[in-house]
Amino acid sequence: MQTKDVDRENIGIIAGGGQFPLNFIEAAKRENRRVVVVAHKGETSQQVADAADAVCWVKLGQLGRLISFFKKEGVAETVFLGTITKTRIFRDVLPDLKALALWNKIDRKQDDAILRAIANLLESEGIMVLESTTYLEHLLFPPGVLTKARPNKAQRRDIEFGWYNAREIGRLDIGQCVVVRDCTVLAVEAIEGTDKTILRGGKLAGEKAVVVKVRKPGQDFRFDLPATGLATVQTLARVKGSVLAVEAGQSLVFDREEMIKEADRAGIVVVGVVERDDGTLEIG
Amino acid sequence: MQTKDVDRENIGIIAGGGQFPLNFIEAAKRENRRVVVVAHKGETSQQVADAADAVCWVKLGQLGRLISFFKKEGVAETVFLGTITKTRIFRDVLPDLKALALWNKIDRKQDDAILRAIANLLESEGIMVLESTTYLEHLLFPPGVLTKARPNKAQRRDIEFGWYNAREIGRLDIGQCVVVRDCTVLAVEAIEGTDKTILRGGKLAGEKAVVVKVRKPGQDFRFDLPATGLATVQTLARVKGSVLAVEAGQSLVFDREEMIKEADRAGIVVVGVVERDDGTLEIG
Repeated sequence: MQTKDVDRENIGIIAGGGQFPLNFIEAAKRENRRVVVVAHKGETSQQVADAADAVCWVKLGQLGRLISFFKKEGVAETVFLGTITKTRIFRDVLPDLKALALWNKIDRKQDDAILRAIANLLESEGIMVLESTTYLEHLLFPPGVLTKARPNKAQRRDIEFGWYNAREIGRLDIGQCVVVRDCTVLAVEAIEGTDKTILRGGKLAGEKAVVVKVRKPGQDFRFDLPATGLATVQTLARVKGSVLAVEAGQSLVFDREEMIKEADRAGIVVVGVVERDDGTLEIG
Repeated sequence: MQTKDVDRENIGIIAGGGQFPLNFIEAAKRENRRVVVVAHKGETSQQVADAADAVCWVKLGQLGRLISFFKKEGVAETVFLGTITKTRIFRDVLPDLKALALWNKIDRKQDDAILRAIANLLESEGIMVLESTTYLEHLLFPPGVLTKARPNKAQRRDIEFGWYNAREIGRLDIGQCVVVRDCTVLAVEAIEGTDKTILRGGKLAGEKAVVVKVRKPGQDFRFDLPATGLATVQTLARVKGSVLAVEAGQSLVFDREEMIKEADRAGIVVVGVVERDDGTLEIG
């Protein structure tokens, strides 16, 4: 008899890679929740599985298994957390019948459409999908310049130029990030991920690349929030980049202190940007 | 005394790499023009220089030298032809005073803006810039399916999906080409060039990538026409891609026979697509 669980409401995590699932587990436990994790093989870390109150390992696409596990564990609320290597979508998937039925129903197989369809399926099974920021509000990217270096005039212009283009790329549901220099778009993120986009654009720039990452217009906070952190700045430092500009309050940041330390060491500007109602930017 | 030139009007070429300058020289000579070439070091082939009636080798950015050479040779009409490795723009340029003055005047340093500014400068010096298709109309990409393989229903849907996205990417003046599969954008071309975009997107697709390349809305035919050819299909075959769809009549194609042969060997669909006035596509 598990007396310790009597007072604790269950919450499910559909976990990918990275440290967000762990941040969430810690925060949820502080709120006295019992945490039930569906972990993805090759993505989710063992640490996450160890910290969970219950865990089920699946391959990408085992939706039926995920649902029956949550039902068995009495999960009525869940969050999507962590990264799935998107390039696996065409390579390393084990779709079960539920997943195949869903896949065939989706018209445009883009991130948002896929995740929204999965969320709808879960909700039709009585499992609500909460916003990814639940319990993680302290990890939202703050507004203003975080580093010692502040953006100069040319960098501000590049941030504005990149912002416009990243927004449009998001509107097309292609990606969230662009790399620019001197008001030229050097790289656009599609499904290869932000780090690879930074490396590609940064090499093309030679140096002084400006990276802009924004929330997609109409993006659903329940999944696929933009995220940045120490690794992002390390990647940018490798290609001698100069600016990381991220939409403040609309994305998560991890290892913030270490990230700022690394940026200061490399002379990189890190800034949380706010778009005002009239479309102009508050760069800080 | 060069009696042979008495009846021949001069025409200038600002030549990049690839075979177009050579195609042009042959065609222009058939029209009895005297061909004066500004060749770019590291880009233009020696063959092009050898075929010209007069040649001046420059590094990217030597605008003053280019203009005085054309004036000395009596050139009043010129064309931009061939590729410049765009990634050099930030690496391997020797801008002279004219180029620096021009560079500082351009607001958004994108292809079109840069080339248009150069064209304006030339025209202010009395040197008209003609459309790149001059004498090369026979190299325009034809409408319809060129290969034995015809696009199936799913491929048609991907062509339409890719077309929409490529147009928007062009409207942003970012690039001309996207790689898609199953209505997901896998790669967007920025300044890395079409071949690298095909390789990246094709690898992410695993196989069956669909490549769509279109003319940018409002693109100036005087420079930077989309071009495809044997090398494009060879690149696509390397990543087991399935379709190359190109805007018909709005781009050039080289080595057409060899390209079709290679596509047939690899089972690739090559198709020239026409956008009707109502925005729907004639895929053939």
